[in-house]
Amino acid sequence: MRLSRYFLPVLKENPAEAQIVSHRLMLRAGMIKQSAAGIYSWLPLGFKVLRKIENIVHEEQARAGHIPIQMPILQSADLWRESGRYDDYGEEMLRMKDRHGRDLLYTPTAEELVTDIFRAHVGSYRDLPLTLYQIQWKFRDEIRPRFGVMRGREFLMKDGYNFDLTKEDALHAYNRHLVSYLRTYERMGLQAIPMRADSGPIGGDNTHEFLVLAETGESEVFYDSAVTDIRLGSREIDYDSVDECRAVMEEFTALYARTDETHDKAKFAEVPEERRRVARGIEVGQIFYFGTKYSEPMGATVQGPDGKPVPVHMGSHGIGVSRLLGAIIEASHDERGIIWPEGVTPFHAGVVNLKVGDAEADAASEAICAAMAAAGLEPLYDDTDERAGAKFATQDLIGLPWRITVGPRGLKNGVVELTSRRTGESEELPPEEAVKKLARIYEGHLVRGI
Amino acid sequence: MRLSRYFLPVLKENPAEAQIVSHRLMLRAGMIKQSAAGIYSWLPLGFKVLRKIENIVHEEQARAGHIPIQMPILQSADLWRESGRYDDYGEEMLRMKDRHGRDLLYTPTAEELVTDIFRAHVGSYRDLPLTLYQIQWKFRDEIRPRFGVMRGREFLMKDGYNFDLTKEDALHAYNRHLVSYLRTYERMGLQAIPMRADSGPIGGDNTHEFLVLAETGESEVFYDSAVTDIRLGSREIDYDSVDECRAVMEEFTALYARTDETHDKAKFAEVPEERRRVARGIEVGQIFYFGTKYSEPMGATVQGPDGKPVPVHMGSHGIGVSRLLGAIIEASHDERGIIWPEGVTPFHAGVVNLKVGDAEADAASEAICAAMAAAGLEPLYDDTDERAGAKFATQDLIGLPWRITVGPRGLKNGVVELTSRRTGESEELPPEEAVKKLARIYEGHLVRGI
Repeated sequence: MRLSRYFLPVLKENPAEAQIVSHRLMLRAGMIKQSAAGIYSWLPLGFKVLRKIENIVHEEQARAGHIPIQMPILQSADLWRESGRYDDYGEEMLRMKDRHGRDLLYTPTAEELVTDIFRAHVGSYRDLPLTLYQIQWKFRDEIRPRFGVMRGREFLMKDGYNFDLTKEDALHAYNRHLVSYLRTYERMGLQAIPMRADSGPIGGDNTHEFLVLAETGESEVFYDSAVTDIRLGSREIDYDSVDECRAVMEEFTALYARTDETHDKAKFAEVPEERRRVARGIEVGQIFYFGTKYSEPMGATVQGPDGKPVPVHMGSHGIGVSRLLGAIIEASHDERGIIWPEGVTPFHAGVVNLKVGDAEADAASEAICAAMAAAGLEPLYDDTDERAGAKFATQDLIGLPWRITVGPRGLKNGVVELTSRRTGESEELPPEEAVKKLARIYEGHLVRGI
Repeated sequence: MRLSRYFLPVLKENPAEAQIVSHRLMLRAGMIKQSAAGIYSWLPLGFKVLRKIENIVHEEQARAGHIPIQMPILQSADLWRESGRYDDYGEEMLRMKDRHGRDLLYTPTAEELVTDIFRAHVGSYRDLPLTLYQIQWKFRDEIRPRFGVMRGREFLMKDGYNFDLTKEDALHAYNRHLVSYLRTYERMGLQAIPMRADSGPIGGDNTHEFLVLAETGESEVFYDSAVTDIRLGSREIDYDSVDECRAVMEEFTALYARTDETHDKAKFAEVPEERRRVARGIEVGQIFYFGTKYSEPMGATVQGPDGKPVPVHMGSHGIGVSRLLGAIIEASHDERGIIWPEGVTPFHAGVVNLKVGDAEADAASEAICAAMAAAGLEPLYDDTDERAGAKFATQDLIGLPWRITVGPRGLKNGVVELTSRRTGESEELPPEEAVKKLARIYEGHLVRGI
């Protein structure tokens, strides 16, 4: 993409309304624009990252055998009356009437609707296990929306629902989700720690939240510092294996790690003192097992092996897709701007032409862009006539992890400069070597864009 | 994908509520489920096609140089009051109040919001031309929703907006959209004819609708039959070339083709009698040029080359993404079910194992699936223990364009059967040849799935 033809409205000033760094940087980098309290438009750069995150979620859901669907934004109130949640949900639910006076709502979550789909179409235990999920816009009418996309009212969320014959099977689904979420977050360059949590209006006993440690997090968290040493890494997990998934779950949840909602002072005191940590965290996902809480009142039963109808055991599992952008930026930035992890960066490298209009510099820059495209990499080519300092400042602000600087002086020696945004270190390389090095760096990190 | 692990709830009976074939087939093939009047859930097979169509639209928008953004579902009423459309829009607009009593609406279109983004960020003619687009859910509170996704209330739409310095530039954007839409529809196996149309509540003088001819279309159309002989085909069009885009526009709109809204009996009478056609059509897109209708009242100006502020010339351009599924099925089906064009098929071929449990048949089927995956093709592997007749009926219903049938008898001779859904013709081939043939068939038709 040529910057001269792109729409990247970066701001020079710090916007007054932004209280936290991710909100400030998303506004300054031209990623979002607020259109109403807690409701945002995603500008090109922001939408590109959003889509990458979405695609990582889709890829990891597919790997776990979960099946994508798309449920509507609006739901009829009738289904929510069936489960009893229409009255329970309170003012966070946005309600409206259509032209015929029928009650509709902007879905904050979809347990009822997916249970309705299930009961209409699935009748036998032989069709289980089944996990359906979607990535869809949700709405919660927060009384005080703030922190940009971190606590917006309209937000993009992955919500998945498992249907199983027995509690044991459903707990496997729970563990399988835990494993696949860990992998999902790690691909985005995030460490998200599963912490025992409170179930809130979803209901159920078993639930873990995934928290990214950050000073700006809205939750107070208490944990054993050893929990931050565990990584899933590149191990291959068989998602059908009950034992393998349970082992990962046990490994990641054995150590003390809780939010303030479930914090237990006595248990925390058992953690060796030098490993006790009190910090803040950003919630980026949550998994639940809630048994037959919805299947029983809504009549979602299957015929069991003995021919008798049994209500299915369910759980639901969410990832805050749009909020993840804020969390990633909170976890990865410096005073000059964002530093995208390779897995989610909107472009793989910036190509900065220091002398636009110079035939040699133009040709070399374009050749680098073409070579990157041939390697499956997407460049953002700064072909504008800004000064070098302004170009570098924009690159630093928008946070592409790599920059290739092309200038007449280097080209005389047959080299360009490859710079890491994270370390600031540069090396001089022939153009084709720079592209080859980028291709190696991005191996295993390529995600489809939009 | 193994059918035994998929969620494909096909119906044996014709659903009573469906009046037209696409609605009936989408329900029977387990693609959608109605959740409220005119509001649908997209089940796995339907969502897969929806995503392919979405991705074709994204690819063709990128080719035309248009830039994707994502605007919110909900908008503040204030913006619509600025343009004067809040009162004009009537009962089709779904309105609601949030917990603080502020007026919100479920966006039916986004001229106001995109103009607000533009005026906030763009100040100079040097930043033009600019075309921003999104694919997002929209809502229109149809008084009588019907025909499934063809006339639903909540629907997925691509809406794009061009910003240009002059009327001439904006008319180039108009022509560029016309060309890119033609290519978009052709990739989906559709012929969509641009017809002079009425601008309705969007406003403006220049507008064309794109219509797919079908008996079930809601619009009466009048055209010169020679218009159906024109195809864009594989010609390369330079989207930056004013002349090339205008030539395509003129070629496709020179012959008489109008909807009942703009029909002109006298002009129609000039068409040679044997070429005069009166038929019905499904609207799958519309392009508009409306000049400064929004930029003037909303103050969307740029500094022109002479330093003076000028309101930008705009147009908007829509594709009915979810409705396209209905249109494609209306145009491509037979009495046994859907026949997907290669460009949008949810899976590239069905692999039907006639003897599940037979070691040789299982191994051969799995090898075919693996070879397809290696060639970038996605199989739907029927590994269930249904009878052959039922398996074939499901394949015909869901409409994958190709089927590979694997059975012990053929395998003894080293062959499987490759069958075209469209022609019903079969040929016997060694498994690896069948996959190679599929790879050739799909060359140029591969679109990313989800």
